Amino acid sequence: MLESDLIREFQAIFQRDIDSNLIVPNGDDGAVFVSDKEIVVSADVCVSGIHFDEKWSTPFEIGRKVTSANLADICAMGGWPKYLIATVVLPSQTGALELARGIAAEADKVGAKVIGGDLSAGHELTISITAIGETLRPIRRSGANIGDRVYVSTLPGSSAAGLHILKSNLNQDSDLKKLLVSEHKAPTIDYPKYKKAFSLASAATDISDGLLLDAGHIAKSSNVKINLDKSVLAKSPLCDLDPERYLDWVLRGGEDHVLLCTSPSAIPGFIDIGVVEGGNGIELDGVEIEIGGYSHQWPSD
Amino acid sequence: MLESDLIREFQAIFQRDIDSNLIVPNGDDGAVFVSDKEIVVSADVCVSGIHFDEKWSTPFEIGRKVTSANLADICAMGGWPKYLIATVVLPSQTGALELARGIAAEADKVGAKVIGGDLSAGHELTISITAIGETLRPIRRSGANIGDRVYVSTLPGSSAAGLHILKSNLNQDSDLKKLLVSEHKAPTIDYPKYKKAFSLASAATDISDGLLLDAGHIAKSSNVKINLDKSVLAKSPLCDLDPERYLDWVLRGGEDHVLLCTSPSAIPGFIDIGVVEGGNGIELDGVEIEIGGYSHQWPSD
Repeated sequence: MLESDLIREFQAIFQRDIDSNLIVPNGDDGAVFVSDKEIVVSADVCVSGIHFDEKWSTPFEIGRKVTSANLADICAMGGWPKYLIATVVLPSQTGALELARGIAAEADKVGAKVIGGDLSAGHELTISITAIGETLRPIRRSGANIGDRVYVSTLPGSSAAGLHILKSNLNQDSDLKKLLVSEHKAPTIDYPKYKKAFSLASAATDISDGLLLDAGHIAKSSNVKINLDKSVLAKSPLCDLDPERYLDWVLRGGEDHVLLCTSPSAIPGFIDIGVVEGGNGIELDGVEIEIGGYSHQWPSD
Repeated sequence: MLESDLIREFQAIFQRDIDSNLIVPNGDDGAVFVSDKEIVVSADVCVSGIHFDEKWSTPFEIGRKVTSANLADICAMGGWPKYLIATVVLPSQTGALELARGIAAEADKVGAKVIGGDLSAGHELTISITAIGETLRPIRRSGANIGDRVYVSTLPGSSAAGLHILKSNLNQDSDLKKLLVSEHKAPTIDYPKYKKAFSLASAATDISDGLLLDAGHIAKSSNVKINLDKSVLAKSPLCDLDPERYLDWVLRGGEDHVLLCTSPSAIPGFIDIGVVEGGNGIELDGVEIEIGGYSHQWPSD
């Protein structure tokens, strides 16, 4: 298929009902829209072999996973995603349309539209998405106050546990194991639930790099300490699955795209996992815990 | 350097003066801005070995080149670029900061700010930029009318000619040859000149894939024919350089990011290269010319 034909197929997959705020849709040099709200933008790039593994995930699942990371970032700013711009580097046309359908399927969960993008050949499947949303009140990482409670939309660690099951070639002999593998391939995010935090949260972030690291971002930006309650984290079903590894998954596992926030009052449906205190860093039951850093391996360094 | 440290270095390079419309700058889960105008968005992805060659271009030049493609797309919609979101896949940290400085240098030409992005390791240097601009009147590809004249901001082909000089290992023994090579590495775009077309153009597009192909986009979207005047194209300095190849460079060479537009009245500083007529397709001096298609080679197909 010619590249121009492939682009037309993508555009057909991304086609949605008319949106009166979208003045120029996909298909020109740029898309044009209007908004009377504050506009949130965020971007994520995902590379084969690093953010997903083509031997475990279908193109559709990869499309969903990459998109969920972007939608979650907009929600973590107190915003609702409206538009996506997707650029894709493809080693092959095989699977390309399924990838686009995965992007569209995840975007449909929040009613977001893909309004532009670009396509290139390349040796490594790479997807970069910029998400654009609207907010009435941006929630920053820096807003946590001493005395606030710390909440998550669900306990994290599913993606890390699912990856462990795949890498260790464990039998998927329970519904839980099957669920974790599925969550690793593409997380199931309850986006409408996130909305409940929009008016209540003092600070928020998406857990993309692990609870510790992302809670550390809030603590540092807000100049506070976050004290996590281990007894709550132990309620994770991962604790029954693997009592030795569960805490590492919950604390350091990324890519579940759980919403982490602080608030002076309870957020319906969210789990209270700790408290904001004076000081800095992260504690587990009052004991300081090393956050560590995260870094990719640079192939040529 | 840890990835988190590298991201901080990038943020420092992209740091600019306070912008009262930018509510949340770089450094949170997303950036937040407000605008009372129509918002234009566009994205381009550039891959090493396809859109640039690391043996000929410095990281700074690559940063400039990739950014210029995005800024030109916003201008081709009648918009002025305000913000950029850049995602970068790096095989190595070497040159990464120079790449960022190249992005920032080109963005500074129009006063655009990099307000977010993402970074990943990977085997192939890949840069994806989403540009966000503002417009008072979007100029679409579909607005050309019979009788309009056809204009370009400059005659295209410089990048293709520069690439030929590099690939053929020609001596760069004239100012023209040096200029063409430089334009291939990173085009010099007179962005303020583009503004002169904003109130006058009936249709516009960025010449990224070559004059023929991009004029074909306007002709098809506007349901008209575009008749180009060969005597004007022959005034290109490329004609003296290589009388046999020049027309191919002017008609089919991409990546100069020349602004192509149609207008019922002259656009100051622009060159009149033809006329919009009834019919379809592209003619050169009244003779139909095959547009052809463009396609990447898919490495694994």
